[in-house]
Amino acid sequence: MGPRLITLTTDFGYSDPFVGTMKGVIGGINPEARIVDLTHAIPPQNVAAGALVLRYAAPFFPDGTIHVAVVDPGVGSERRPLLIETDRAWFVGPDNGLLSLAAKKVRRVFELNNDTYHLRPTSRTFHGRDIFAPIAAYLALGLPADAFGTQVDQFVQLDLPQARIEEGAVRGEIVYIDHFGNLITNISAQQLGDLRAERLAIRLRDLEIEGLSEHYAARTEGPLALINSWGMLEIAVFRASAAALSGATVGDPVEVLAERRSG
Amino acid sequence: MGPRLITLTTDFGYSDPFVGTMKGVIGGINPEARIVDLTHAIPPQNVAAGALVLRYAAPFFPDGTIHVAVVDPGVGSERRPLLIETDRAWFVGPDNGLLSLAAKKVRRVFELNNDTYHLRPTSRTFHGRDIFAPIAAYLALGLPADAFGTQVDQFVQLDLPQARIEEGAVRGEIVYIDHFGNLITNISAQQLGDLRAERLAIRLRDLEIEGLSEHYAARTEGPLALINSWGMLEIAVFRASAAALSGATVGDPVEVLAERRSG
Amino acid sequence: MGPRLITLTTDFGYSDPFVGTMKGVIGGINPEARIVDLTHAIPPQNVAAGALVLRYAAPFFPDGTIHVAVVDPGVGSERRPLLIETDRAWFVGPDNGLLSLAAKKVRRVFELNNDTYHLRPTSRTFHGRDIFAPIAAYLALGLPADAFGTQVDQFVQLDLPQARIEEGAVRGEIVYIDHFGNLITNISAQQLGDLRAERLAIRLRDLEIEGLSEHYAARTEGPLALINSWGMLEIAVFRASAAALSGATVGDPVEVLAERRSG
Repeated sequence: MGPRLITLTTDFGYSDPFVGTMKGVIGGINPEARIVDLTHAIPPQNVAAGALVLRYAAPFFPDGTIHVAVVDPGVGSERRPLLIETDRAWFVGPDNGLLSLAAKKVRRVFELNNDTYHLRPTSRTFHGRDIFAPIAAYLALGLPADAFGTQVDQFVQLDLPQARIEEGAVRGEIVYIDHFGNLITNISAQQLGDLRAERLAIRLRDLEIEGLSEHYAARTEGPLALINSWGMLEIAVFRASAAALSGATVGDPVEVLAERRSG
Repeated sequence: MGPRLITLTTDFGYSDPFVGTMKGVIGGINPEARIVDLTHAIPPQNVAAGALVLRYAAPFFPDGTIHVAVVDPGVGSERRPLLIETDRAWFVGPDNGLLSLAAKKVRRVFELNNDTYHLRPTSRTFHGRDIFAPIAAYLALGLPADAFGTQVDQFVQLDLPQARIEEGAVRGEIVYIDHFGNLITNISAQQLGDLRAERLAIRLRDLEIEGLSEHYAARTEGPLALINSWGMLEIAVFRASAAALSGATVGDPVEVLAERRSG
Repeated sequence: MGPRLITLTTDFGYSDPFVGTMKGVIGGINPEARIVDLTHAIPPQNVAAGALVLRYAAPFFPDGTIHVAVVDPGVGSERRPLLIETDRAWFVGPDNGLLSLAAKKVRRVFELNNDTYHLRPTSRTFHGRDIFAPIAAYLALGLPADAFGTQVDQFVQLDLPQARIEEGAVRGEIVYIDHFGNLITNISAQQLGDLRAERLAIRLRDLEIEGLSEHYAARTEGPLALINSWGMLEIAVFRASAAALSGATVGDPVEVLAERRSG
């Protein structure tokens, strides 16, 4: 096995040295650590956006990867710092639901309450630097997960809206809008299921899109819908922004209907 | 030789986990890979901007570097995924002109049509993750270029406007505007050639700048012109933005005239 | 000792390949170098912001770290390129005050005037690429600091406003606003000293905040004040932006008063 990767996902942005400081702490403990930034542009305090990013990116990392995520408005309060061990990865971050979408096949969960491995003095405003970064660095060195705290039974689950499968229709909503203005729904390819075999109509606000495209260039005029690289239904526009075209925002309902053959 | 560097240049932005996901794929194949981000803020679908960035940055990387670039509106369509081998580097990306300005002294070109080395299942919307990242990772491991597909004869050349040398003048245009608002032209130091020895006048929109400066602080009032670190004629303003001062945009004509001694 | 880390702090932004090019130069000299970005979003030419970022981040890096900083409007002019050796780190960058807040316990200072270790040809517009990056790479290889130039006695000190301790009050100002809109002052926990034991009132513009909070979630309505992770007095709003709420900008005065018991 190669060295364990550490990923970082935060709402810290790119203008301050907060992420770099976490890397300094990691490098001081584990100079060989390899760190990958997922993104630091999660909208401030938007736990759901961070949870989605981590959910869809984590499966593409090798076994043994340590994912650190910090979208943490409750830092320093009663919310617990967590380490979640799954069948193939570790997740480190606050117990506010941020880790809950990505952490599948959970083995053990620990509250990070053994301060032996925390940076001292430990601030109550920057656990990314003082708790999560050092724990990730020590984990990457091979320390066992149970060194860092007490095993616990539960952790906060994020309650995201789920798509509903109905007779001849799937109803969901926009859950994420990417940098290109692509509108990503909570409707998965699996949920479309049998509907995919037929002709579909996808409705969002004023738009009605007929059929699924295979790729972005398959329809060069107007909006298109496709199953994206995360396996989810997405509404896009070739070389343009579906968000700008539609005015859609996160939470807007999306309907997928099996088209009636008229006449 | 040290480990081969992999560079990444995309229009994926910094808010989504797309770049991080590519790094996860690379790390799963080649845990020792060293990855450098050139930029991920190429304007969406702007192949010319990506091609220029790669052209001017690639020469500063060591021999054996693998440059991956993804500005790829045609992903999943008939456009081919390519590997270009030059006398000192590899370039991996879509065959849409993106690699054509940087890939000098080309030895061989391959269409990446051997899916043995692709991520499976292979999406039709994210070849950065499913084709380009794994190919780069395997190349960095030392696999030979001809393992990845069929050699081809040609690849798409980007048709950028060229500066013209005329009697006592060079006419070009703004091709790139950097983060500082510096206006970079397609007129090279070599093209100025003999003109450089004389006094010059540089004209852009309403501005007329006399002479070339040696550095940004050499003229602390008003616009200045200099040969920049890419060897190109650039119009700048000390501690300010030439783009904001002039209102210039990419495509605006720039004239360099040998000044007449009047009277 | 592990490999020496190199940190980079610049105002180059994220849209151009300038930072990536520096990493290419470093990688060509020292393929094993490990590089951490502090931030590249220092506002253009804002030497004070760069100096503060470096000051508050550098202490969290391990001994032997090499900090490269480039906010350098005077590049190519008479301003000197510097290497500062302290008791635990190196600082590389222009002699314009940028390094002066972070470089504590200075041992030796060198003007980087031995061009043996510069990239050739050496531009007069991009010393980050041509001087600072290669010097950092050679330093990380273990070359001695005195290889790079002539020892000098002094370097430019940044003259930042200092908080003043008065009878029953500390007066300072906002010196940095982070990505969350948190307002960071130049008043340290130490300067609050005895005042901390009593009840305090913090005044900024129209706001008056009573008392210090322990963390961001401790007051969920309205503005709060706390000692932040840099050890400085900060004004914040839970899940919101204190900058937006207050309209405050860098330079605005902040008063901390020991509250009178009225009546």
